Amino acid sequence: MEFDLIELIRSRCAMTRADVRLGIGDDAALLSPPAGHELAVSTDTLVAGVHFAAGTAARDLGWKALAVNLSDLAAMGATPAWALLSLTLPEPDRTFVGGFGEGFAELAAQHGVALVGGDTTRGPLAIGMTVHGFVPPGRALRREGARAGDFVFVTGTLGDAAAGLRCLDRGDPRAHGLFNAPPDTRETLVRRLERPTPRIAAGAALREFANSCIDISDGLLADLGHVATRSGVGIEIDADELPASSALLALFERDERLALQAAGGDDYELAFSVPPARAGEMQRDLARIGAGATRIGRVVAGDRARLLRADGSELILQRRGWEHFA
Amino acid sequence: MEFDLIELIRSRCAMTRADVRLGIGDDAALLSPPAGHELAVSTDTLVAGVHFAAGTAARDLGWKALAVNLSDLAAMGATPAWALLSLTLPEPDRTFVGGFGEGFAELAAQHGVALVGGDTTRGPLAIGMTVHGFVPPGRALRREGARAGDFVFVTGTLGDAAAGLRCLDRGDPRAHGLFNAPPDTRETLVRRLERPTPRIAAGAALREFANSCIDISDGLLADLGHVATRSGVGIEIDADELPASSALLALFERDERLALQAAGGDDYELAFSVPPARAGEMQRDLARIGAGATRIGRVVAGDRARLLRADGSELILQRRGWEHFA
Repeated sequence: MEFDLIELIRSRCAMTRADVRLGIGDDAALLSPPAGHELAVSTDTLVAGVHFAAGTAARDLGWKALAVNLSDLAAMGATPAWALLSLTLPEPDRTFVGGFGEGFAELAAQHGVALVGGDTTRGPLAIGMTVHGFVPPGRALRREGARAGDFVFVTGTLGDAAAGLRCLDRGDPRAHGLFNAPPDTRETLVRRLERPTPRIAAGAALREFANSCIDISDGLLADLGHVATRSGVGIEIDADELPASSALLALFERDERLALQAAGGDDYELAFSVPPARAGEMQRDLARIGAGATRIGRVVAGDRARLLRADGSELILQRRGWEHFA
Repeated sequence: MEFDLIELIRSRCAMTRADVRLGIGDDAALLSPPAGHELAVSTDTLVAGVHFAAGTAARDLGWKALAVNLSDLAAMGATPAWALLSLTLPEPDRTFVGGFGEGFAELAAQHGVALVGGDTTRGPLAIGMTVHGFVPPGRALRREGARAGDFVFVTGTLGDAAAGLRCLDRGDPRAHGLFNAPPDTRETLVRRLERPTPRIAAGAALREFANSCIDISDGLLADLGHVATRSGVGIEIDADELPASSALLALFERDERLALQAAGGDDYELAFSVPPARAGEMQRDLARIGAGATRIGRVVAGDRARLLRADGSELILQRRGWEHFA
């Protein structure tokens, strides 16, 4: 009974929506998209040992699997609505599934997301999710559209999740100094890794201002490289302007910190470009909804994203971001 | 570059659709659902070693991954439109991905399905897919709705895919006699396993006639058991009426054949219930579109699906169908 486990997860979610005509339990869900909107759809899979450590708490995985998918909708400026879940498990572990459902439900409730379908399969632990959101026609934020002269901004702070991963990795010699760090500082960083915040409200607000937008999953430089390619522009990032949390500042020397900020993945902040004339109003609008953005660079003629020192020379990192296979 | 492989698959698909505003290559696809329709959405994952043998040809996998998902839309009476693919691969094997894309494209072209998004991930071989289709509001076929007195029908023939699986399994002692069977007979059965046909046109036609419908993925009795549960009825199936292909009849004795037909999975035929007064017109309508259906039983008061001998006694199978974990 594949639906028992999906139903168990759904039962943890109080979310119901009037636009769900038929939810879990049939061959397909039946949904009523709102008239006059485009549907934004994205899918992402998390594999044990690749995207998360095998021992990660089920509750955190439930949150994160939804968060990384909602982050893709945020990057389009879309409003989330429905999710489908494909859960592959080595065995039918109801405790795991219950915890997963609780973490999922916590974040789903914040954004009004209904779980409308899915399947469970026996196999190596992996979580596939597909999310749907709505966006006014022609108003979605895209990777293309950045124009030379735009300012480049990023929400929140960078590098915390990558630092959190290092805090957890006892096999990494660079982590040894971190074991003596104050527990609450470590905890702050690990939480950024395990409980990322999709920037939904910021994405929706940015539809009015941004020429391009992407969420940072692979690392700032790698992801802005996608924007540069798709937009046919260059992007210059000022290393000294990258926003850092106090936890990151407390635990890492400058060079190490810059590497985490510019190339660490899993931040799920939004990086976007805005024409200078709109930048002030954009920052006031984001502040009004409790979001903040930092100006970190500019769009120029060129064809890639580069990190610059204060003197304008390029700072080359050993690793530009999380490596998917080619 | 996760999109390179998805783009490689997409490049094999000639399908474009006017309702795809933005396809592969951004954080989400942007789609325009047609006004005045419901959206049917389903997701299914195939895992190597669970749903298919590790050595299965990539091209067949591309076909089958789409077919099993489209079959869910067929069971709802929905018209397919869009697919998203999540491909987990042990290594970035472009030959595999190219073959997969060709098999996917072959079937996608038949049903006008556009691949609009996806991701690739390193990990144990698995294929996740989410499909979207359209259905007039309130007209979708469901598992609930079967009423005592309805006739029960099934499209096509049953048991071929399970027989094909047995032909391939050299470790199964029951397969030994099959190795001497005529190659074209074996080939016919294996092809039913590897290249299932989603009954899209039949599902759409059945919106006018059927009170309930399901596609047979786990096995006839197991799947009709879902219909019985959801509809709050019993279902009686006449063992002697189950439709068999000539290949199945040629290779298996009666008892073995009945087990394959009633409990073998992977048929992807539609089983449905129709009020007797509409049965004749339904069969004429299906015949007109080149589909056929066989009357195999009836809906009665009760709470489960049962297989009956000609004398009305129940025929108990050792195994009712493919076992998902509970």
